[in-house]
Amino acid sequence: MKNIRVGIIGFGTVGKGVVKNLQKNTGVFSRDFGAPIELVRVVDKDIKTDRGIKLPEGMLVSDVEAIINDESIDIVVELIGGIEPAKTLIKKALSNGKSVVTANKALLAEYGEELFKHAGLNNREIFFEASVGGGIPIIKGLREGLAANRIFSIYAIINGTTNYILSRMKEERVSFKDALKAAKGEGYAEADSRLDISGMDSAHKIVLLSSIASGKWIELGKVNVEGIEKVEQIDIEYARELGFVIKLLAVYKEKSNGIEVRVNPTMVDDKGMLAAVTGAYNAILLEGDFVGNILYYGLGAGEKPTASAVVSDILDISRNIISGKSRPFIPDFPNKEKKIIDIGDIRSKYYFRFTVLDKTGVLSKIAGILGDNKISIASVIQKGRNKGNAVPIVVLAHKAYEKDMRRAIGIIDKLDVTKGKTVVYRVGGL
Amino acid sequence: MKNIRVGIIGFGTVGKGVVKNLQKNTGVFSRDFGAPIELVRVVDKDIKTDRGIKLPEGMLVSDVEAIINDESIDIVVELIGGIEPAKTLIKKALSNGKSVVTANKALLAEYGEELFKHAGLNNREIFFEASVGGGIPIIKGLREGLAANRIFSIYAIINGTTNYILSRMKEERVSFKDALKAAKGEGYAEADSRLDISGMDSAHKIVLLSSIASGKWIELGKVNVEGIEKVEQIDIEYARELGFVIKLLAVYKEKSNGIEVRVNPTMVDDKGMLAAVTGAYNAILLEGDFVGNILYYGLGAGEKPTASAVVSDILDISRNIISGKSRPFIPDFPNKEKKIIDIGDIRSKYYFRFTVLDKTGVLSKIAGILGDNKISIASVIQKGRNKGNAVPIVVLAHKAYEKDMRRAIGIIDKLDVTKGKTVVYRVGGL
Repeated sequence: MKNIRVGIIGFGTVGKGVVKNLQKNTGVFSRDFGAPIELVRVVDKDIKTDRGIKLPEGMLVSDVEAIINDESIDIVVELIGGIEPAKTLIKKALSNGKSVVTANKALLAEYGEELFKHAGLNNREIFFEASVGGGIPIIKGLREGLAANRIFSIYAIINGTTNYILSRMKEERVSFKDALKAAKGEGYAEADSRLDISGMDSAHKIVLLSSIASGKWIELGKVNVEGIEKVEQIDIEYARELGFVIKLLAVYKEKSNGIEVRVNPTMVDDKGMLAAVTGAYNAILLEGDFVGNILYYGLGAGEKPTASAVVSDILDISRNIISGKSRPFIPDFPNKEKKIIDIGDIRSKYYFRFTVLDKTGVLSKIAGILGDNKISIASVIQKGRNKGNAVPIVVLAHKAYEKDMRRAIGIIDKLDVTKGKTVVYRVGGL
Repeated sequence: MKNIRVGIIGFGTVGKGVVKNLQKNTGVFSRDFGAPIELVRVVDKDIKTDRGIKLPEGMLVSDVEAIINDESIDIVVELIGGIEPAKTLIKKALSNGKSVVTANKALLAEYGEELFKHAGLNNREIFFEASVGGGIPIIKGLREGLAANRIFSIYAIINGTTNYILSRMKEERVSFKDALKAAKGEGYAEADSRLDISGMDSAHKIVLLSSIASGKWIELGKVNVEGIEKVEQIDIEYARELGFVIKLLAVYKEKSNGIEVRVNPTMVDDKGMLAAVTGAYNAILLEGDFVGNILYYGLGAGEKPTASAVVSDILDISRNIISGKSRPFIPDFPNKEKKIIDIGDIRSKYYFRFTVLDKTGVLSKIAGILGDNKISIASVIQKGRNKGNAVPIVVLAHKAYEKDMRRAIGIIDKLDVTKGKTVVYRVGGL
């Protein structure tokens, strides 16, 4: 049996992990798998820095053509990230008859449909397990393990940086700023963490999960995205008191009137599984029509977990190569008729923190405006008194439409008695 | 493309679920999968009872030969459970060129090695996702998703009945007997729940997980099994106080000196993920050398979750049939040289509850015996006083060998001041 020949583009953190895994764990896969994986080339701009890994003489080169145009290479692993040149390289590799493994969620979220189509036309595969949830085999889970199910919903904590920050804010009772600084200190946040903090990295990932779950390609621009920059300690405290924990959730739901895809800081039940996901861990909670609720939990980033996912993809493609045929397993997205629900038509439970004058009649005024906008109150917390000054009033509301909520908050924020912008959190997530 | 033709043996709870899924969710799999699955025959002794499912005239028959000897059938789904006739039927089906899907953990735990070998000789496959963790795709996870890893450990809550009982004992503060009665009332326990309660069902399942993880076939007789019959409310209360929850854990560990496989009620950290697994849910926590800690959580039993797993196996085998070759994916167990660690040589942290006379010098006597046997104390709880009468003393101990622990307890239980058998729990589970 011929070796399966692999070339890696990008010898950074994940690239190192993949090389280490291929060097170290060959004996492990042989159990389930016939052909030896042979690493034949690693490409990186920087071929000088000592990365603490021994590669055979000449294996590390700087010219990417040495992989893309090497006819003997079966699988190209793209680990450089970003849009270009990654996109062009992947397309070329596919055109040249290679299958591709990538961890590039930003690229796939923006150009996935085009790239998957290109792979299909070339009868080759793009595998991307490492692009969502690091080492967690959630793409395989969705496509294979849960293939018998219609997926009703996904609630996902899929950004380790923000989960670390929120966990730290809760545990240490520190501000967002201090928690972010700690995350950088611990190596859980990059110097430039805007993609994480803004929720955009989670949005990239939920695009991929939602597209697989729905069978419709979800455009990134259709995802409603909110980050964690504005999360304040006071709301974390109120959440604690109310039996909630604030998590940055990426949410997918399929309903009779369409698909909902969004990323929001959300208050989740502190006794549920999602609340137990702390630090840099990730978790994906799915609901299927047959399987019911199911959760995957693990490390969402890092050299070794990400390498675990990349190598599982290499093994999968290798099995397909050995079996002589590519399996009919390229995601196509036939359900074009499915609609994305307009954000205003999404229903949710809400947490509101109003900042208003401590004055007789204020609460009843707010309750009245909420009621006029079809928002019904579940409970109210009003603590202490501060006659004539601004105080917080916290309201939990039953399910209501986003458009009604926005209209109501718009009116309330213009009241004379309102002394600060109303803070809103969605409540839910199973 | 030809249809993949499926026959189901056993039209009970799971059989019904599989038929419903095949009837209802055909549109879902087509996304990832080319060939239509065609249910051609269902066999059951009872072909009269109305199960509320419409099958075409003549599809339900009582003669199992109508599946085993039908040349047109590609996949046989065995759902009758138990050893015989299931074992003979599966072997015949494989000999006749069919692949097999089964949920039969008892059969596989006892005769898996023989059956997998038989499948290999016939170039056919046995898939068994539904045999462990119900709808949770843990077999696929281990064999494919985490294939790049050496698995260091597995901590698994893989029996829903016992987890329901233990959760209820904790939440409602009721006795084992009352919780068992409730479990039966709620349908979470069978009339005969001995296999569950005794830990034997968990043992069957950990045999399968451990064999895949280690690459060595683990004999059921080598698994140290303890059930939950003796769990008392008082220890649940002490556990609560100490920051633990009692769970029935099936444990696999691979260490430098061998493999550890056992099933014990265990005290786990009440802030960890395993503690959050309540009611009839299952969870499997694994540690791999690259992926780190990863957890799968979901419903471990029931008509629909189990059907989800069975159908995912049908789909997997179907893809292999379509690709024209069976993938080299039958588990063989080449690592015969690996040793099972003798139970006495297993190390663990311990919780002890001694029942001793409330008398000066008793605690120091116990501490002395523990120390003489290389068991060092981490903390002690001794509450209230009851001069001259029996009182509980609770001790948490650092890691020690099981043989040392047993010797120490043997000595302590024979002391004059000891008025009841010492209760021991292992503490741990990540």
